[in-house]
Formats: sequence, C-alpha cells, structure tokens
Amino acid sequence: MKLNIALLAGDGIGPEVINEAVKVSDAIAKKFGHEITWKPALTGAAAIDAVGEPYPDSTHEVCKNADAVLFGAIGHPKYDNDPSAPVRPEQGLLKMRKALGLFANVRPTFTFPSLLDKSPLKRERIEGTDLVFLRELTGGIYFGEKGRKDNGDTAYDNCVYTRAEVQRLAKKGFELAMTRSKKLCCVDKANVLETSRLWRETVQAMEKDYPEVEVSYEFVDAVAMRLVQWPNSYDVLITENLFGDILTDEASVISGSMGLMPSASMGAEVSLFEPIHGSYPQATGLNIANPMATILSAAMMFENFGLMEEGKAMRDAVNKALEAGIVTEDLANGGKAYGTKEVGDWLAANV
Amino acid sequence: MKLNIALLAGDGIGPEVINEAVKVSDAIAKKFGHEITWKPALTGAAAIDAVGEPYPDSTHEVCKNADAVLFGAIGHPKYDNDPSAPVRPEQGLLKMRKALGLFANVRPTFTFPSLLDKSPLKRERIEGTDLVFLRELTGGIYFGEKGRKDNGDTAYDNCVYTRAEVQRLAKKGFELAMTRSKKLCCVDKANVLETSRLWRETVQAMEKDYPEVEVSYEFVDAVAMRLVQWPNSYDVLITENLFGDILTDEASVISGSMGLMPSASMGAEVSLFEPIHGSYPQATGLNIANPMATILSAAMMFENFGLMEEGKAMRDAVNKALEAGIVTEDLANGGKAYGTKEVGDWLAANV
Ligand SMILES: CC(C)[C@H](C(=O)O)[C@@H](O)C(=O)O
Ligand SMILES: CC(C)[C@H](C(=O)O)[C@@H](O)C(=O)O
Repeated sequence: MKLNIALLAGDGIGPEVINEAVKVSDAIAKKFGHEITWKPALTGAAAIDAVGEPYPDSTHEVCKNADAVLFGAIGHPKYDNDPSAPVRPEQGLLKMRKALGLFANVRPTFTFPSLLDKSPLKRERIEGTDLVFLRELTGGIYFGEKGRKDNGDTAYDNCVYTRAEVQRLAKKGFELAMTRSKKLCCVDKANVLETSRLWRETVQAMEKDYPEVEVSYEFVDAVAMRLVQWPNSYDVLITENLFGDILTDEASVISGSMGLMPSASMGAEVSLFEPIHGSYPQATGLNIANPMATILSAAMMFENFGLMEEGKAMRDAVNKALEAGIVTEDLANGGKAYGTKEVGDWLAANV
Repeated sequence: MKLNIALLAGDGIGPEVINEAVKVSDAIAKKFGHEITWKPALTGAAAIDAVGEPYPDSTHEVCKNADAVLFGAIGHPKYDNDPSAPVRPEQGLLKMRKALGLFANVRPTFTFPSLLDKSPLKRERIEGTDLVFLRELTGGIYFGEKGRKDNGDTAYDNCVYTRAEVQRLAKKGFELAMTRSKKLCCVDKANVLETSRLWRETVQAMEKDYPEVEVSYEFVDAVAMRLVQWPNSYDVLITENLFGDILTDEASVISGSMGLMPSASMGAEVSLFEPIHGSYPQATGLNIANPMATILSAAMMFENFGLMEEGKAMRDAVNKALEAGIVTEDLANGGKAYGTKEVGDWLAANV
C-alpha cells in the first residue's frame, strides 16, 4: 500500500515522540512492503511562532490531501495562563477538528498487566479494564454560538445537536460494539438537557438495527462515579463533546497506563491519530519522553487502513518492550531507564 | 433558640433516614435547650402520587417560611426509564432549587479513618482528603432556554451566567477558604467556553479582596483526572452547575465514605440540608438504610445557625458509633449490623 501521511509534530515533546513513531512505522512498512510518504506541517505554538496562527491553511491543505494525520502534541506554557488571549494553540485544535470533520474521537482505556500498580485505584478494581469512549468531537457546546451581552456582564454558550450528528456518532458506536462484547452505553443528562433527550431518543431508535447490541443509558454524573468504582464494567461508551472531554480524561488515569494511551479522531474523509498525553514542555529535548503512546497511535492508524497484522506487530513489540524493561524513565520503576530514541530503535528492530 | 424546620422526607428510604435525623436533632435540642418545630411537607414521587406534582405550592409555602429545610431523598424507579415523561421527581428538585434560590450547593468530601479501605482508591492516595465543592445550583445550562427546532431534529440548551451569579457563588468560596486552609480552586473550561471566561475573570477580579487566599484555575477535564490521582491535594473548589454535578459525584466515591456524606444548599433566605445518597428504593421499609449522612446533614444545619457545639456533638457521636461498630449493614464488614432505628437510638442517647 502507498500511504501519504501528514505529520503534525506540534510542541514540546511532540517532535521527539513523532520521530520514533515514524521510525517504527517505517520499519513496519519495510517489513510488510508498504511505502509511506511523510508530509510534515506546522501546528500549535510552533505554528503561531512561525506564521501567526495555530492551524494555518497550508497545514490544512497537507492534512486534507493526506490518507491520515499523525499528530504529536500541542500546547506551550506561554499560552497557559491566559485563556482569553487572541491566539492560542487550542484554537488551532478546534479549527482543525471542524475543518477536517473529525467527528468521532476514539479513546480506548485498557490495562497492561505490568503497569497495574501504577494506578491510583486498587488492583482488583481495574483488572481486565478494556473500554472505549467514542466522544462526539465537532458539535455541542464547543461549537455553538457563544458571546457576551449586557456590556460583558452576561456570557452565553449555546449547546446544539442535530439528529444526524447523533446518528453518525452512534452508528460508529454500534459498529464498534459489534466487534467487541456487544455492550453499548449512551452517556447523557437526559433528566435535564434537551440535547441529551435528542441523543437518547436517537440512539433508542437505532437499537432495532443492531438487535444483538445490548444498550444501556446512564447519566453523566453516575458514569463519573462508576468509572472510578468499576471501570471494568464498561465496554463501549458514546457521548457528546463536553461530557466526553471530562470522562475520557477521568478514564485515562484509572488504568495506570495513561502514558501509553493512543487515540484516534475519525472523519468521513481523513482521520487523525495521536497520543492522549500533552506536550510536557519540561521534558522537551531531553530524550526522556515515552514514545509508546504515539507508536500505539500509529498502530491504530494502520488498523484503520485495514492493515491489522501491521497494527498487531506494533502492539506486540510494545508489549515485548514492556516485558523486557526497554522503557523510558516514567515506567522504569527504579530499574534502567532508556532514552526516547533508544526505545524507538529497539521497537523498530523488533517489530 | 426556636427553630422552624421544614421536613421533606421524599421517597424510598427518605422517610426512614429523616426519622432518625429528627430523633437525634431533638436529642441535641433538648441537651442544649433549643426548641425545634418540624413541618413535614410532600415532595418527589410521593408528592406526584398525592397531588400530581413533585414540588407543590403547599410545600413551597412550608419551605419558604421555615428557618431551614431538612431533606431526605427523592426518586422512584417508575420514573427512571423515561426522562422525557411529563412529570418527574427531578423537576421538583430543580423547581425547588430555583424557587428557594438555593444558589450554592456545598458538598464536602472527607475520609473516616475506619472506612479508608472501602475506597476504590489506594489508601495512600486518599489519606487526609478533606475537600469541599461549592457548586453553583440555580444557573447555567440547567436553567437556560432549551428546546427543539427543525421538526424536532435539532435540540438546544443554552448555558448562561451573569457576573453577579458568579460573584455570589465565588464570595461563598473565598469565605469558606478563609475558614480552612486558604486555598481556592476555580474549575472551568475557559479555553473553550465564554461562560467559563466570565467565571475566570470575575474570580480573578475578586482575588484582591482576599489577599490571603491562594487561588488556582484548573480546567474541568484536568480536575476530573487529579480528583482520582490526588484528591488530598484539593481544599475548596468552586464551579458552575453542570461541572459541579459531574465532579461532586466523582469526588463522592473516592473517600470510601460515600454513604456518610452530607450536603447543604445555601440560599439568601433559607438553606436546605440533605444526604448525598439517593432514595435506594430496594431498601425501603427494611430498616437497613444508613441514617448517618442525614444526621451529619442535620449537623451542618445546626452549624449554619451558628450552633457550632451542637453540630460538633452530632459529629462526635457519629465518630463514636463508627468506632464502636454501631453501624448499619453497609458498614458492618461482616460484623454485627444494626438497624436504621437502632443506630438512631444509639446516637440520640450518645450526643
Ligand atoms: C485543549 C482542549 C480544547 C481540548 C478539548 O477540550 O477538546 C482537550 O482538552 C482535548 O480533550 O483534546
Ligand atoms: C436529579 C438531577 C436533576 C440532579 C442534578 O443534576 O442536579 C442530581 O444529579 C443532583 O446532583 O442533585
């Protein structure tokens, strides 16, 4: 297969972890006879510094014409303390999601047996946890009309959803559930919000098309509790943009493997793959960042092209590295810590 | 002191736990020379059954004219599976909050040493946890305009906040922080929402009036993570209605003492006190429900009247009961389980 991949390294440790993901992907391509062309483009604070905006048109051109986007991380401390600054890296993120139509954010949370003890939760609570959130990513209160009235003394944010938006996301949820244990949980606040009632009735109407899938409906506050109590009781969860923002982050810390979690944002045309971790500015350039989450994101990318064996080879290599202790300092647990590059080299040699 | 307390027992185990809180409060009143007049009124499913609505005007009259409201729990399974039913217990709750102007929901989360092992989190993560959420309760997306367009295919919920609403809630937060460790965290999503930017700028402007309070600003998704990672790093947190709904429920499960957590909803005129647990319909009438959260809510009520010794006496009695093993089945841990009434009797005799 010939693959054209937009490469958005971004800020902080982004470029370093992206480098290793490229290295390992190239090794996979070589092994399985594919040809990857990487198309680097600017984003985040790096893009603001270079051209004054976080998601420039030139970057959008590259992404739109690619078969997929591999993304590092964005964010820089100089923008952190002023969320109302006129130009911020996050705006680039939202603009990119909307412009590329990345409507479904896929966030798996699973455990690695060797990392269970890193979790804040007790072992018996998390063993076997293997859940996936599908978060709606281009609608809701993030993109509704917002502004001020009364000389700035009143602020408003409108949350809007259409039936078609819910159907599109829910369809992905049902399909994913069919490939897993056929359990789907729709997370809403239908006892208070009209948008949630639309979500619930739309999903309810789709149930008949997937008679094998067992669907449950839970309120977002209840899910926020049960995720901590019994994360392993969930399988596939679908939810709207803001609830998904909060719950996927909450879910990410419970497995103890947060630094290893990949994610995908699926669009109708192009999809984007990125680690869930941030740009860790403090670690920039130190060759200590863990590249595994980005490498597992690249594995999701291969699988999304239908290249299942390739994805599995990458995953298996990561598991082997974890078992062999070829890990960066965050996972070294007092043992030897390898550098970002060395972990990438080992994985490239072992896929 | 002469106290006039509206008594809203509600549904499920509500009446049983309320009975014991009355018993213990009366014992306190007797000991300290107060006179409490209890004014029972209907609410929840019980009120729907009796008069067709969950918060009837007659109940509002009783609450409005009382010095405080003591509340049990509402909710009944017959309303659970249809969030769009025309009349539901939750509507009564929202109507009551608005009508009584209960703008600040106070939700402490603290640990009882003897219960640490009931937490899903590891002991070292939760030891010393003692935090309080102040959740704005009468504004935001709960009460903004909501509805449908396009023949029902588009739904919307408007989130609105005014500067005055934020100030009123934040003032309570600063004041509470001054009585504790002088740390205040404002939880928002100011990188996306205009209402959050209003929250942040309003709180920032108030900082100068409380120079001793150290204020931090965190995004709601980051707080959802850190609450599970290091709950004991927080002290007082202030936030808007929907974020508060999600985060206070999340926080309630981490201490391991969820069944013991009280809460208060403060208004300009009257305030309401209630356990955070639900109406547990399955346990109704079995004399097994734990009355301690309701009794600790009554303790908060006394303290809100400035009767600090009275509140402390109730708290101390609960601690003694926990140590002596005078507990209901949920806390019995294989030991002897006492009934709801017996725990109440013991506490009334020991305050
Ligand atoms: C940076 C921010 C705008 C973004 C979001 O809220 O979507 C982030 O939290 C995420 O989840 O990707
Ligand atoms: C029942 C529901 C409307 C309510 C809320 O969302 O406020 C509940 O979850 C709560 O937190 O008291």
